[in-house]
Amino acid sequence: MPSVTRSWDRLSDHKPLIGFVDACLRGPAQVVLQNNPLTGLLVLVAIAWGAFENGQPRILGGAVLGLVVGTATAVALRVDEPSLRKGLFGFSPLLTGIAVPTFLDDRPLMWLYLVLGAIATTVVTLALNAIFKTWGLTAFTMPFVLTTWVLLLAAYQFDRFTVLTNLKPMFPGEGQLSDGRFNWDLVPTFLRGVSQIYLINSWVTGLIILVALLVNSRWSALFAVIGTVGATVLALWFGADATSLDKGLFGFNAVLTAIAVGAVLHRPGALVTLYTLFGIALTLFVQMALTSMLTPLAIPVLTAPFNIATWLLLLPKRHFAPVANHERAKETVVSTVKHTV
Amino acid sequence: MPSVTRSWDRLSDHKPLIGFVDACLRGPAQVVLQNNPLTGLLVLVAIAWGAFENGQPRILGGAVLGLVVGTATAVALRVDEPSLRKGLFGFSPLLTGIAVPTFLDDRPLMWLYLVLGAIATTVVTLALNAIFKTWGLTAFTMPFVLTTWVLLLAAYQFDRFTVLTNLKPMFPGEGQLSDGRFNWDLVPTFLRGVSQIYLINSWVTGLIILVALLVNSRWSALFAVIGTVGATVLALWFGADATSLDKGLFGFNAVLTAIAVGAVLHRPGALVTLYTLFGIALTLFVQMALTSMLTPLAIPVLTAPFNIATWLLLLPKRHFAPVANHERAKETVVSTVKHTV
Amino acid sequence: MPSVTRSWDRLSDHKPLIGFVDACLRGPAQVVLQNNPLTGLLVLVAIAWGAFENGQPRILGGAVLGLVVGTATAVALRVDEPSLRKGLFGFSPLLTGIAVPTFLDDRPLMWLYLVLGAIATTVVTLALNAIFKTWGLTAFTMPFVLTTWVLLLAAYQFDRFTVLTNLKPMFPGEGQLSDGRFNWDLVPTFLRGVSQIYLINSWVTGLIILVALLVNSRWSALFAVIGTVGATVLALWFGADATSLDKGLFGFNAVLTAIAVGAVLHRPGALVTLYTLFGIALTLFVQMALTSMLTPLAIPVLTAPFNIATWLLLLPKRHFAPVANHERAKETVVSTVKHTV
Repeated sequence: MPSVTRSWDRLSDHKPLIGFVDACLRGPAQVVLQNNPLTGLLVLVAIAWGAFENGQPRILGGAVLGLVVGTATAVALRVDEPSLRKGLFGFSPLLTGIAVPTFLDDRPLMWLYLVLGAIATTVVTLALNAIFKTWGLTAFTMPFVLTTWVLLLAAYQFDRFTVLTNLKPMFPGEGQLSDGRFNWDLVPTFLRGVSQIYLINSWVTGLIILVALLVNSRWSALFAVIGTVGATVLALWFGADATSLDKGLFGFNAVLTAIAVGAVLHRPGALVTLYTLFGIALTLFVQMALTSMLTPLAIPVLTAPFNIATWLLLLPKRHFAPVANHERAKETVVSTVKHTV
Repeated sequence: MPSVTRSWDRLSDHKPLIGFVDACLRGPAQVVLQNNPLTGLLVLVAIAWGAFENGQPRILGGAVLGLVVGTATAVALRVDEPSLRKGLFGFSPLLTGIAVPTFLDDRPLMWLYLVLGAIATTVVTLALNAIFKTWGLTAFTMPFVLTTWVLLLAAYQFDRFTVLTNLKPMFPGEGQLSDGRFNWDLVPTFLRGVSQIYLINSWVTGLIILVALLVNSRWSALFAVIGTVGATVLALWFGADATSLDKGLFGFNAVLTAIAVGAVLHRPGALVTLYTLFGIALTLFVQMALTSMLTPLAIPVLTAPFNIATWLLLLPKRHFAPVANHERAKETVVSTVKHTV
Repeated sequence: MPSVTRSWDRLSDHKPLIGFVDACLRGPAQVVLQNNPLTGLLVLVAIAWGAFENGQPRILGGAVLGLVVGTATAVALRVDEPSLRKGLFGFSPLLTGIAVPTFLDDRPLMWLYLVLGAIATTVVTLALNAIFKTWGLTAFTMPFVLTTWVLLLAAYQFDRFTVLTNLKPMFPGEGQLSDGRFNWDLVPTFLRGVSQIYLINSWVTGLIILVALLVNSRWSALFAVIGTVGATVLALWFGADATSLDKGLFGFNAVLTAIAVGAVLHRPGALVTLYTLFGIALTLFVQMALTSMLTPLAIPVLTAPFNIATWLLLLPKRHFAPVANHERAKETVVSTVKHTV
């Protein structure tokens, strides 16, 4: 395996087209903060499974189209080569490419909208990174979130689109919350909490993503599990809506926070784990608050809670544990945080 | 003509009062990113035409009052002389001065509100410029937007004011969109798209503003036309509300983005034009999204979409074309972007 | 008195526990920008009075718990010692500790929510200070505002909590405004305007807070009075809702702006006073606008208007009067603004 990896790395260094494919493959992995083309490939498999399981193969098409258009836009805008090669310009457009066919009805114009959205996601990535660099941060998946919110909110004003979010605009507190219970049915819920990172409702997809994480970093896989279990159990305890909970909707943001804060951007340890557990609760509360805020607009929170909570947790720069540079995944993401764009 | 211009410049350098008048005249021109007192004078004529055509002469009064109070506040706060002289503290208060009598009913207290609003606009200009300087940007017309939003939203809470925006608070997606068609009636619509920069619905006003642009910069006039045509046609294609479209409401933000990105802040060229065309679409989508967001609050988007889209397009700092400094309009705006406040 | 103060200062320098108590006591004083443990003690007395007068002793419990947990979190996160000792990590969690039992119904889980909220407030304080340092500002009470908004909005999504804000979600402009009058009943209203800084509706509490201010800084006490009188009278003149006005709800934000801009962060003087009077009007308008914005979400504005208005007034950095460093209160707050975290 390592020798295969090494030959691939050498190939992608020398052949521009292979290099582009390599950058594209790393995109799906960078959503979960991993820099590994194999992880990315497995994530694509997981997305494909979920898309076909839910009878929406066009979601796989949207994912690949978004990924390729977003990465190609980065090439056209001549972004810095190392960031491009790490897949850092593919992960947000990939998510935009999944979100558009998920939330808008299928028609030719939707695909043009998706392409424009993927281009915009890359421009917004460059713009937000320029701002966040001021505080040693990156934009994470916020470019995807902002672009998708704009596309969905704008779609309300265009007669040619129909928004399919299943949300009805209303005042917060008006909806009914259904009751949930502690039982073994929570296990697939935990896995769906992982799959929802990619807007997919499938425990198999969640399982494949955990394997994809394991391939690159055991700590990341462990903290992903801690994130989805922690947030889902906390949401159940506090009486959150059981229908949403069952779909894994209270897990995915916490998974991302747990990977980022617990495994990738700090060296794992006791204090860091404590901070991460607090971070999981913070992510859930921010998600619930954002859900209320967006209720009158009837748009989903996407991964905004992860971004907001993780920025808040990183900004204080408490150096519980200096990050060691010996692990490739860590090194690249951290150097990115420092030098991106 | 050049000799007249030169004598005026010399006069305004030496006589403080003429200097103040010169700064005030450049204000209306700086809304469309031009630094030329003649352009500003023509814009004032365009505003006057629109105000009288629509039977609301008090809008001209508000414009002049806002312009003078805002510029005088800048003098009192001892802002940096060169920025003041370029009209950079007049353009946002001018717009606030137009917006207040447009959106609030006529009564003496409204004029006090307008004066306080114009003072606030200058303070907010200084505040936002201090923030945006961090990333080599300026606040553009955002101080006008924020101040006017505050004045309108606050007016809901004051029994002494009546808000006249013609908007009813509702959830997004609840309103009816009317159908539009491609025909020759679009030509006056394109011109109204230009006049709406100054919140005026009149194709004659739009035409005078184009002339005012031509006086200072042919590229700016050209990109203004590209902006209003591009955004209006795109909005029509995607099925945006025909009533708003007819008033030119989908053109004005794109006009400003097109002038800023295509003509003033980059050297015009093929790649820049391509980027600008994308920027026009981005501006329209941001405008539509913001329209949905503000629907429950029933306030207009004003020029916020231009500001947001242009910041997003400038932040990546893609140097398609280095800006040449030989043209006065460009030089001043660019030096402003770098050194303001 | 001075000798008692000096012995206390010496004690708290040498005994860690006394030092912690001293830091906790300065927290309540820092809400009103004073650095004095006696002022803080008097404020706690004022809060206690209000809590018992309104039959809600748990509000005093929440205040003390928030203060202690927030300050202890700062110790655990090893923040910089001088800021900690000045009470700069106690004032926002104190307010969160008051807000949670004020706006949520009483049950054991509420206290866990309060503790998590107090921890979050300290993390958010560190995060926002890291951002605002870029422009020479601090986060003031915004960490309290953001955390409390998140806790209240999230509570809508949790079956285990009931939000008791007395606000009904609706569109802005839908509510009825009741009429007010100029008469002697305004005097207790002015005092309630001071007490509402700590979310308490009691003129006695307001009076004790004024005494607490006097103990440390006569200028601060004077500008507090100017703030509450100015904003309340302006609100009455413009026809704001008389029921809210009577509770002092239009005074408290202006009190904070007046103390910050008029007395603490600039050297008091004629120009500064003029700027402060404008700042009081600005604070009121921002508050009214924010009230409209938050109407659909049915959450209170808290002290957000003070934060926003004061940032806008400080950012232009107009040096009307250089701040002299001879007064302890001023020196510490200003050095904080420059060096925090």
